[in-house]
Amino acid sequence: MEKTSTDTLPLTMISSEEQETVCIFGTGDFGRSLGLKMIQCGYSIVFGSRNPRMSSLLPSGAEVLGYGEAAQKSDIIIMAIHREHYELLPALTEVLRGKILIDVSNNLKMHQYPESNAEYLAQLVPGAHVVKAFNTISAWALQSGALDASRQVFVCGNDSKAKQRVMDIVRTLGLTPLDQGSLTAASEIENYPLQLFPMWKLPFYLSAFLCGFFFVYCVIRDVIYPYVYEKKDSTFRMAVSIPNRVFPIAALMLLSLVYLPGVIAAVLQLYRGTKYRRFPGWLDRWMLCRKQLGLLALGFAFLHVIYTLLIPIRYYVRWRLENRTISQAISKKENPFSTTSAWLSDSYLSLGILGFFFFVLLGITSLPSVSNTVNWREFRFVQSKLGYLTLILCTAHTLIYGGKKFLNPSTLRWYLPSAYVLALIIPCTVLVAKFILILPCVDKTLTRIRQGWERNSKSSKSALNGKTDI
Amino acid sequence: MEKTSTDTLPLTMISSEEQETVCIFGTGDFGRSLGLKMIQCGYSIVFGSRNPRMSSLLPSGAEVLGYGEAAQKSDIIIMAIHREHYELLPALTEVLRGKILIDVSNNLKMHQYPESNAEYLAQLVPGAHVVKAFNTISAWALQSGALDASRQVFVCGNDSKAKQRVMDIVRTLGLTPLDQGSLTAASEIENYPLQLFPMWKLPFYLSAFLCGFFFVYCVIRDVIYPYVYEKKDSTFRMAVSIPNRVFPIAALMLLSLVYLPGVIAAVLQLYRGTKYRRFPGWLDRWMLCRKQLGLLALGFAFLHVIYTLLIPIRYYVRWRLENRTISQAISKKENPFSTTSAWLSDSYLSLGILGFFFFVLLGITSLPSVSNTVNWREFRFVQSKLGYLTLILCTAHTLIYGGKKFLNPSTLRWYLPSAYVLALIIPCTVLVAKFILILPCVDKTLTRIRQGWERNSKSSKSALNGKTDI
Amino acid sequence: MEKTSTDTLPLTMISSEEQETVCIFGTGDFGRSLGLKMIQCGYSIVFGSRNPRMSSLLPSGAEVLGYGEAAQKSDIIIMAIHREHYELLPALTEVLRGKILIDVSNNLKMHQYPESNAEYLAQLVPGAHVVKAFNTISAWALQSGALDASRQVFVCGNDSKAKQRVMDIVRTLGLTPLDQGSLTAASEIENYPLQLFPMWKLPFYLSAFLCGFFFVYCVIRDVIYPYVYEKKDSTFRMAVSIPNRVFPIAALMLLSLVYLPGVIAAVLQLYRGTKYRRFPGWLDRWMLCRKQLGLLALGFAFLHVIYTLLIPIRYYVRWRLENRTISQAISKKENPFSTTSAWLSDSYLSLGILGFFFFVLLGITSLPSVSNTVNWREFRFVQSKLGYLTLILCTAHTLIYGGKKFLNPSTLRWYLPSAYVLALIIPCTVLVAKFILILPCVDKTLTRIRQGWERNSKSSKSALNGKTDI
Repeated sequence: MEKTSTDTLPLTMISSEEQETVCIFGTGDFGRSLGLKMIQCGYSIVFGSRNPRMSSLLPSGAEVLGYGEAAQKSDIIIMAIHREHYELLPALTEVLRGKILIDVSNNLKMHQYPESNAEYLAQLVPGAHVVKAFNTISAWALQSGALDASRQVFVCGNDSKAKQRVMDIVRTLGLTPLDQGSLTAASEIENYPLQLFPMWKLPFYLSAFLCGFFFVYCVIRDVIYPYVYEKKDSTFRMAVSIPNRVFPIAALMLLSLVYLPGVIAAVLQLYRGTKYRRFPGWLDRWMLCRKQLGLLALGFAFLHVIYTLLIPIRYYVRWRLENRTISQAISKKENPFSTTSAWLSDSYLSLGILGFFFFVLLGITSLPSVSNTVNWREFRFVQSKLGYLTLILCTAHTLIYGGKKFLNPSTLRWYLPSAYVLALIIPCTVLVAKFILILPCVDKTLTRIRQGWERNSKSSKSALNGKTDI
Repeated sequence: MEKTSTDTLPLTMISSEEQETVCIFGTGDFGRSLGLKMIQCGYSIVFGSRNPRMSSLLPSGAEVLGYGEAAQKSDIIIMAIHREHYELLPALTEVLRGKILIDVSNNLKMHQYPESNAEYLAQLVPGAHVVKAFNTISAWALQSGALDASRQVFVCGNDSKAKQRVMDIVRTLGLTPLDQGSLTAASEIENYPLQLFPMWKLPFYLSAFLCGFFFVYCVIRDVIYPYVYEKKDSTFRMAVSIPNRVFPIAALMLLSLVYLPGVIAAVLQLYRGTKYRRFPGWLDRWMLCRKQLGLLALGFAFLHVIYTLLIPIRYYVRWRLENRTISQAISKKENPFSTTSAWLSDSYLSLGILGFFFFVLLGITSLPSVSNTVNWREFRFVQSKLGYLTLILCTAHTLIYGGKKFLNPSTLRWYLPSAYVLALIIPCTVLVAKFILILPCVDKTLTRIRQGWERNSKSSKSALNGKTDI
Repeated sequence: MEKTSTDTLPLTMISSEEQETVCIFGTGDFGRSLGLKMIQCGYSIVFGSRNPRMSSLLPSGAEVLGYGEAAQKSDIIIMAIHREHYELLPALTEVLRGKILIDVSNNLKMHQYPESNAEYLAQLVPGAHVVKAFNTISAWALQSGALDASRQVFVCGNDSKAKQRVMDIVRTLGLTPLDQGSLTAASEIENYPLQLFPMWKLPFYLSAFLCGFFFVYCVIRDVIYPYVYEKKDSTFRMAVSIPNRVFPIAALMLLSLVYLPGVIAAVLQLYRGTKYRRFPGWLDRWMLCRKQLGLLALGFAFLHVIYTLLIPIRYYVRWRLENRTISQAISKKENPFSTTSAWLSDSYLSLGILGFFFFVLLGITSLPSVSNTVNWREFRFVQSKLGYLTLILCTAHTLIYGGKKFLNPSTLRWYLPSAYVLALIIPCTVLVAKFILILPCVDKTLTRIRQGWERNSKSSKSALNGKTDI
């Protein structure tokens, strides 16, 4: 919901010592909000408008003039107009010469135009210093002072002094400027507000595929198979039982996929005998989305935990337990206690709890504000050591879950093994490969390679650089 | 606990190249802590004191002089004295002329004096540039370097150059300055450290009222009614059973109250045919506390989840299950299995789990450090799309909870329906209204209004501005 | 996994208006990564190398020269070479005179050399201004733009203008500079990346000891004792039952240890009659690790909650319940319902749930990004008021857990009381002491002492300062 109140904030400027004047072209929502905020922070604002006398709702204290007159009042002009209206700017070329033009515009979709709006502006007004900024800030956040939304302002431009002045304004408004380099970065900055979790796409589709595949697999084994052979209606299993098989499988597989690229990279470095060759593109991309894979795995693990904890409340479980007890009571026989079953059940639960606990710890340390307070060594310790510990605990939890029935042919249905058996393939592979990689003889070679040593190095240059420099 | 050690930190300044000298009036806890921190960051400090020879516990390396002499050593003077002692400053008017006075004082209660301390200081010493800063920082945080407490320093002042110099000092100390505009903002800055969760007050009272009302309602239905008609002592229900009815009701109602103001605003805009009229004050205030309402709802949902998960451990539940089983075993009859009951129970649980899962996701994305890393589109996607998904899941969970008994007259006690039926009124209203609002014909009009179109626009100015400008 | 791709980022610099030139000595991983990042942010980079023609993998657009020629191109030189190679710098003394040398080096272990690398560099090149910076940033984070790792750059140096220029570079790269004072701080900054959770060491060892001690204690009471007297194999209890006794005990004791030092400090101040004497060192250290103690306690409480919620799923518990029901059904007798047991069980669970809820709230508010948005008064309110509420709830939860058997001699085994009885000693002591401290007569004296009053103050100086100054 957009708020349209423009003068609710109590901070108003009275004094007028040495105020810097900034000009804003355009009196739309964003222009007005930015103007109000700047007035509150001590700037003097002149709006440029096509119809200065008809502009309404402007913050009190601001002046409104035609474009040309407004531009003469300041050497910084904020372009709060749509790209389609930039065409009126060439007429002002003389007035704008040498001034700083801040392009705040966004487009409706990605790569809408061949060049970015800011570069287009720079072509139209060649004498001015164009700086891209503020496009990631919402009008609503500016007005309400809401700290919820992002306070990062990406800034780019070819003239570093102009960029510095814009970054000073950003800081004065209580926002955080991030220098992104020259104006060629503008197209990326303009695409940024249009992105919808780009880093999450691959992990999201992967986990959707995993969930879909294992859901169908479990439906075949647990619903269709009993229906075909026993004419039993087990459809209600699709609500809780099958999700509670699919989610832990997805969690374990995604978690192991977090650690698989590291293992692959190490094997690749060992095989190549050097670290000075780029990894294939898919491995790079995979490595950059490990955090997202891990967080999705945590989400599935969380679902698995709640589904499991709710088991005793389910009608089906209560009914089964009660009926078993009743029939045993009627036949007057008691169960013998099996210490082995108690051990299996309890250690299975305990491993799962500890695995989930460390998994939650990993999740908490990946919160930006937490990871920002630890140093690099601590971050790697948590994400690598604790991560492998979590993987080991969760894999052991799944192995013991199978217990005596693990790989027992009697559990096959239509030659299909239990779903959790399939889920164990990748985690076990990762753990075995990692175990081999940390054997002293392998680890020593790998460490040397990572310190810059090259197996087939004919010239000494890389080795030398690797040893001398940081 | 305040720590009084003033020299535990290891960083001491030895070199003396080009140090800036800053003067601090007052040698209390805060003045000493600030002085020590500034010395560590490379400033040279002169303390001004009424009794320079009697001042103790000062950081090593600092000089102590009388007020007048100390003021002459620097053009920046930090006023670490209480407002009651400002009266001695007019005597120093000549020495302080043109200098920057930093007012760091706080009051004991809000609006204690007619004008802010900083404005009072500016009146007393008219020739000086008064800047308000540092009042939100605690002496203890400065000493211990504790990053726990806030590092934001609100700065305001009428002279922008003076303000810039103060903001540079703030940055050098590793703190984050936030420019709040002119000195009129000082009263707000002085009230800030005295606030106690002002945004949480309304949501907190509202949820306390909801909890109180539904607690009494449930006590009447579940404790007093059975006592009156069956002479049964059900008071123990007040410990777990009734809280576990009240908390989910409070959670669902608060969650729907997060989305109700958005619906009201949309209806209002449709009715008025323009977005260029301010919403009533209560709607503005309501909108600004939506985050707090949602987080309280999440808290109640969390309590509901744990209370529910603990059900099978309760003595009462175990006793009831055991006795039912025993009496059935004695009468030698087994329960028939009802697939419908299994479906109802399992889908009810599954909807609740998924609703809680997305609710937790919403809560995590509202953490400042997480919401700061997403762009505006992503933030709205999560808070709006995922939020409505959560509301739909939780409402469906409650509807299915009723199951076959929903709106069944036999559940009335003293004409009172079950509490969860009342809880469904607002969420269902919100969902129905939202469904109507996203119908293509309504949505199209609303979108046009939000882009600046006005139904009864006689002059074209606003429409024109809305289309031209950002 | 280190990535070695140096040119994956899309931002490249084309324009060349007024670029600042910076020289980087050394072409290792870190030097290349930093150079690439600086080129992207608009700097012009000249690498200095021993073998300029043999340097490979350098970012495109960078020049490579010998050390001497490279140094002449810029007045800022980043030393991306290992300390062992600083010996070649004295030969360049003339070229480096008056220039800013940025030392980015780290060591392999803490306190490896008598003086810090930066101070050693300053001795070797006396005419240059040495600034320590960037050593806490990882090459990988610079390359990938990963915001996961810390963005804080600690900066120190004797020349404040040199330091300011370096801090400007840090800000331009989108990182956060933190001024740490003069070059004597360099040894601390160099040790920082080698630390592994130094603040967590004491709390971690303490909780490991508590867990170990109570585990052995419970094994003696619950496994060895029944084996000796009843020849019963209860070893399976070590998987779930005993951890679920040890974890809540550790949680409660650690939580009470968070509040014990505050109580001790208050008693000490009352006894001494002044706040102007330092606390003993152990109390200071204890106070600084209260947050870590509390978070560990929260971790144990979380484990306790999940272990408890999983109780009904355990094989042993199901077996016991079923067999009890069967044997009662066979002997055809029903249990009578005990309202007292229902009250005890339900209030015990309810207190535990509420205690855990407030504990989680405390944990959330101690997240850096959350505590950064609250003011000092709110932070103290949450950590002190809510903290004591949590302690009261958890202590009451444990007291009622004992219920009728609390301190009953029949629960002694080999004269050992139940473990939870031992766990109650410290929390009850803290609560009683706190209760005495907030009695009006005691509280009044304590408040006066904390405002600067001294019982045996002969001279009036401290009292005067305490009253006058902030």
